[in-house]
Amino acid sequence: MNEEEVVDPSHPRYQSLMIRKKIADAGVKGMLADSAMIAHGRGEAFDYLLGEQTLPSAKDATREVAARLVNAQRPVLSLNGNAIALAGQDFLTIASQLGCPIEINIFYRTPERMGALLGHLKLLNQKLGLDVEILGGIPDARIPGLEGPRGACQQDGLFEADAVLVPLEDGDRCEALMAMGKDVLVIDLNPLSRSSRGCSVAIVDEVSRVAKNLIQFIPEKPSVTEWDNNKALQNALDHILETMSNKFD
Amino acid sequence: MNEEEVVDPSHPRYQSLMIRKKIADAGVKGMLADSAMIAHGRGEAFDYLLGEQTLPSAKDATREVAARLVNAQRPVLSLNGNAIALAGQDFLTIASQLGCPIEINIFYRTPERMGALLGHLKLLNQKLGLDVEILGGIPDARIPGLEGPRGACQQDGLFEADAVLVPLEDGDRCEALMAMGKDVLVIDLNPLSRSSRGCSVAIVDEVSRVAKNLIQFIPEKPSVTEWDNNKALQNALDHILETMSNKFD
Repeated sequence: MNEEEVVDPSHPRYQSLMIRKKIADAGVKGMLADSAMIAHGRGEAFDYLLGEQTLPSAKDATREVAARLVNAQRPVLSLNGNAIALAGQDFLTIASQLGCPIEINIFYRTPERMGALLGHLKLLNQKLGLDVEILGGIPDARIPGLEGPRGACQQDGLFEADAVLVPLEDGDRCEALMAMGKDVLVIDLNPLSRSSRGCSVAIVDEVSRVAKNLIQFIPEKPSVTEWDNNKALQNALDHILETMSNKFD
Repeated sequence: MNEEEVVDPSHPRYQSLMIRKKIADAGVKGMLADSAMIAHGRGEAFDYLLGEQTLPSAKDATREVAARLVNAQRPVLSLNGNAIALAGQDFLTIASQLGCPIEINIFYRTPERMGALLGHLKLLNQKLGLDVEILGGIPDARIPGLEGPRGACQQDGLFEADAVLVPLEDGDRCEALMAMGKDVLVIDLNPLSRSSRGCSVAIVDEVSRVAKNLIQFIPEKPSVTEWDNNKALQNALDHILETMSNKFD
């Protein structure tokens, strides 16, 4: 552990720094691309603007996502490196609650990184005494419209899923999954991102806070509603606007 | 070069991705702390909200900073790893225009990182045929109120400077430099940061764009004005607010 990894619990942004530490640790373990740290920083900025809290509209969106996952025929959790680093354990619990697989999907696919992520989830699976199916290691299907390794997926996972939870997903992939007719459920701190705007339900909240809330909501088996995604996004924006308004008058 | 470092010039965010690549390359050279990537990502988010452009208010602030550097008795450019990675060459040109030293000041000081940064600047100095004095390697004074290596500085550099340019500086350091009675000139993409709010003049703009503008303004020898820092910050915020307003109505 080097000096920069020591976090003082009295620091006003202690939670944020602890979350950051998870990303740094996962980087050391070879689970992340270089750009993962930068992506995390972008998220940090938006979380800072949201006040590092779960807004009521985000909680509603999380309940809606829980409802859609519970009611889906073939839900899948599609996780990338950052999602696994930040909330791998909680996503295993969620997959177990739903009886669905996790599929690892990473933007910059290398065998080493894929191996590190698979190994990490399998170890957590054991530790929790769970038996969640972990897909993604042997892709045998393609998402139409996505070139190269980014389109790789598994037939009995992402390809045939009717509802997909995609935390921290890039815009192209979201669009391609929507075009396949799936219910695309996004977790993204940027309410203006293409992912947030182009999906079925976007939760504008930090991924580890969302995972904890999903674990609470799923057993309640909430009902699916007519969800107005734009309304929820505007609500998150309005909160940021409020934070920024007339600061210096 | 690995796959993620290839940037397509037709990408809508090509400039932003090229800037990001400079940070990644500097990381490989040992010039940066782990947290540098995350800090860069935070900046990227704010630049995205600003439209990745220099606002008129930022251009005015840059002209004011040029004026104050030109008119100072002992100006110093205080550079950290990210500032050197993003605009090291341009800051050497600026220091040469002003006839002032650069002092390297890094939050997480290790001999290796300091050596990598000193070596990088000295090489650029040679390449440009300049003879800019590079301080920071042998600190012999302390900034009052800052503990540990963060307070280290050089007597004939930062310690005795009357005006200091501090790109991407942390809030504590800015405050401590202000308390020393210096003219503290900040470059920071977050108009709400403690650095932006607590300094003499904040330029809310991306550091490599600012450096290019400073090179243009310094030879014009602009006059120092009564600068209203809060007004300029509110202007940047208002632009972000505008970007975010009624997106989903």
